[in-house]
Amino acid sequence: MLPYKSLIQIDRDASIALHIQVCNNFISLITKGTLLPSDALPSSRILAELIGINRNTVKLAYEELISQGWAESIERKGVFVLSKLPLVAKTALPENNKSDGTHHAFQWTNHFTHVVLSKSLQKTTLAIDDGFPDVRLAPVDELMREYRSISRKFYGKGFLKYGSAKGSDKLRSAIARYLSDTRGVMTSPDNILVTKGSQMGIYLAAQLLLHPADHIAVGLSNYRLADDVFRHTGANLLRIPVDDKGLDVDHLEEILQRKKVKAVYVIPHHHLPTTVTMSSERRLKLLTLAKEHRFAILEDDYDFDFHYDNKPYLPLASIDHNQNVIYIGSISKTFAPALRIGFMVGPTAFIEAAASLRELIDRQGDTLMEESFAVMFDNGEVDRHFRKSLKIYKQRRDLFCQILQADFTQEIKFTTPEGGLAVWSTFHEKIDLTKISEAASKKGLFIDNGDFYKNESFSTNALRMGFASLDEHEIEKALTILKKIIQ
Amino acid sequence: MLPYKSLIQIDRDASIALHIQVCNNFISLITKGTLLPSDALPSSRILAELIGINRNTVKLAYEELISQGWAESIERKGVFVLSKLPLVAKTALPENNKSDGTHHAFQWTNHFTHVVLSKSLQKTTLAIDDGFPDVRLAPVDELMREYRSISRKFYGKGFLKYGSAKGSDKLRSAIARYLSDTRGVMTSPDNILVTKGSQMGIYLAAQLLLHPADHIAVGLSNYRLADDVFRHTGANLLRIPVDDKGLDVDHLEEILQRKKVKAVYVIPHHHLPTTVTMSSERRLKLLTLAKEHRFAILEDDYDFDFHYDNKPYLPLASIDHNQNVIYIGSISKTFAPALRIGFMVGPTAFIEAAASLRELIDRQGDTLMEESFAVMFDNGEVDRHFRKSLKIYKQRRDLFCQILQADFTQEIKFTTPEGGLAVWSTFHEKIDLTKISEAASKKGLFIDNGDFYKNESFSTNALRMGFASLDEHEIEKALTILKKIIQ
Repeated sequence: MLPYKSLIQIDRDASIALHIQVCNNFISLITKGTLLPSDALPSSRILAELIGINRNTVKLAYEELISQGWAESIERKGVFVLSKLPLVAKTALPENNKSDGTHHAFQWTNHFTHVVLSKSLQKTTLAIDDGFPDVRLAPVDELMREYRSISRKFYGKGFLKYGSAKGSDKLRSAIARYLSDTRGVMTSPDNILVTKGSQMGIYLAAQLLLHPADHIAVGLSNYRLADDVFRHTGANLLRIPVDDKGLDVDHLEEILQRKKVKAVYVIPHHHLPTTVTMSSERRLKLLTLAKEHRFAILEDDYDFDFHYDNKPYLPLASIDHNQNVIYIGSISKTFAPALRIGFMVGPTAFIEAAASLRELIDRQGDTLMEESFAVMFDNGEVDRHFRKSLKIYKQRRDLFCQILQADFTQEIKFTTPEGGLAVWSTFHEKIDLTKISEAASKKGLFIDNGDFYKNESFSTNALRMGFASLDEHEIEKALTILKKIIQ
Repeated sequence: MLPYKSLIQIDRDASIALHIQVCNNFISLITKGTLLPSDALPSSRILAELIGINRNTVKLAYEELISQGWAESIERKGVFVLSKLPLVAKTALPENNKSDGTHHAFQWTNHFTHVVLSKSLQKTTLAIDDGFPDVRLAPVDELMREYRSISRKFYGKGFLKYGSAKGSDKLRSAIARYLSDTRGVMTSPDNILVTKGSQMGIYLAAQLLLHPADHIAVGLSNYRLADDVFRHTGANLLRIPVDDKGLDVDHLEEILQRKKVKAVYVIPHHHLPTTVTMSSERRLKLLTLAKEHRFAILEDDYDFDFHYDNKPYLPLASIDHNQNVIYIGSISKTFAPALRIGFMVGPTAFIEAAASLRELIDRQGDTLMEESFAVMFDNGEVDRHFRKSLKIYKQRRDLFCQILQADFTQEIKFTTPEGGLAVWSTFHEKIDLTKISEAASKKGLFIDNGDFYKNESFSTNALRMGFASLDEHEIEKALTILKKIIQ
């Protein structure tokens, strides 16, 4: 007989019933090949004595084993492992589940090796980030109030059932009004898909637009997670220079003579990472080219709401009379990164297709959050939050740039950004950003090493320095630490 | 001069400033080609009179136009449309944005034409659904309490910042404990990715495992949205018969002699749609085949928690000693469909890859919801909810099957399901389910027409009849309506 006393392990404190524990132990012995088909199990009396439990518990365990098809009872002989079970070769178990990724039981593709900025950032209290909002300003109490009110109001909790993959009807109507009021994008709820932030808009659009070997034009410098999304489709990235007037549309025109381009990804408002705004001239020309060459313009307008000096340029989507533009925006970016909510605007049929794909990915968004934001758009809470944070962020930008100007004359070159939440800062070539980042980390300050902004054709000693998530005191503290390290 | 009085439309009730409205009107005229490069704009005095606004407002509008690069001021001559803007060909505008999908400015792929069950269901109060939980039982007040408590507790609102794409650390630990306690799946938080429901687990795994022309084995009848996910990767679906012992593993073995199969998708617990449970014998053989042929088993265990008669079979993942299994489960399914939360368990390196892909799709989950569920796992709320609903659903299943047995003897053939939330009901061949569905709809009852369960190789006059979302009174009411219609 097997040494059941040591093989069968039970835990009297576990929430799982004793007989199920015994049953599971036997299943494990069978599936590991310790017990073989037709092997006899010990009598209930013997096993009960060996492991010190009640005999009826053992009987219950055997009944469970039999009912699950692992064992069979043969009259007057006892209980046996089911004879017709396939034989299991005895194998040594892997040491643990934490495999190192080199030897696997099956194959898969992993071509996602992107550097992620936020990982080490998460645990730091003082951080010069990529340009994130200050989550301390987010109207969380107001949001919670709506959550509570909606969760109580809806009869039968209808909001908890499956909803539309396009998002809440109310929120789509609210976003349509908001886009018309704030930026002249005239659209209808049918042209809007509520996403989980602009990232999902980029992903869905890319999956619909691009096939392997298709061409998509992007900035020479570009938002890294958009590049990764496009690569994931198997498409070729055609890099277009970006200067102080944005994407070089003349360069794009030359390429269009030779190549069929399926889409152009552009961040006309504040280019990522360099923060430049695209000129009106180029905007018009891009739209003209799109019409002529029948490509889609994927317009990422992730931080339209933050513009400080003059009124922001209207998006391409507002002057897109030929419906070439898919317009992507974010509410997460203006409230808090973890509140994943955004939108995609496009031709109705495109939005329908995107909704069908979205259904395959995660079926739908968070109805409670969507309904709550719909209320907060309608009652002016969203607008109040934008106005309040715009004012605060402008002060922070001014202070941040003032200190950079005064204290980092030799070390950092930059242009004060007209909008957005970060300063594109080019460091003197003698400054090693990796060393700076490590040294800062020891002083309790997170600052990136700039790798996130590099790609196969763009490499410069620069990084985005986010000013918005730091208050005045923190800005001074962070830049004082940085100054000391650089010297 | 253009008829500005009718061309410039302002709305004094809008929240957008008057001068911005005027500016936007001019931008629209320029981008439509009504105003051409070098055209003169009317003097501020004349325009102010024409449209009845203050002259200074017009001046502000012109300044904005100039600062945005649409116009230029030429000294002593006035304001002109920027001469170097590209010429825009005058075009007739499309009638509206609601294009019919035939004539588009760019091309995209739409191969998602799946029938979606939930759309018409959403608006009905009385519904025999696909097997959804009763959202009225969901502990929403408890969830809201955690939301509120967490949103207040965290200093600096850290939970609102970007978090991990793998999900909350606390929730992953809670899920690891829960899987070990309830179903013998021994795993660590590093092997767990928190998803937005099991759908996202299927999507992520498919994207990593499958390339165009790869083979994946699935049931002859199968969960439709899984089939669609696999097709979306370009993979071939190999259909394997499903009988009363689940997926026919012998048939699979034959196929493996001839074809390289990358993955097998299986719902061993309660097969979708037919609700059969896979036998122990076949489970062991499937694992042995996976080891030998090095394919991944994608185990979808979406409703493990609902099993009524004996203890549920342990998942394949609990006896997977060679790490071939990717185990997918849902918490949404047991709480409420709109609370999108689930998990995927697999080798660490696979989970890392899945997290990187997930980051490209939507960056991360809803931290607030994840942290709240972690607390509710820890304080026993999740367990309480499972026990409570299990008891209620068992009563509903019994009543539902009892009525089917008594009143639909001729019309419906079924086997009482051991678990899950639906009865797989085969209707008499003379009963036209489309007509039944339409007639029911007129009587205020939603019942599907069965199309959702058909595919290119499976077509039967059957459907899943969900009993869980209806209370006793509603079950009687729904089946009374159905009975009247069928007669």
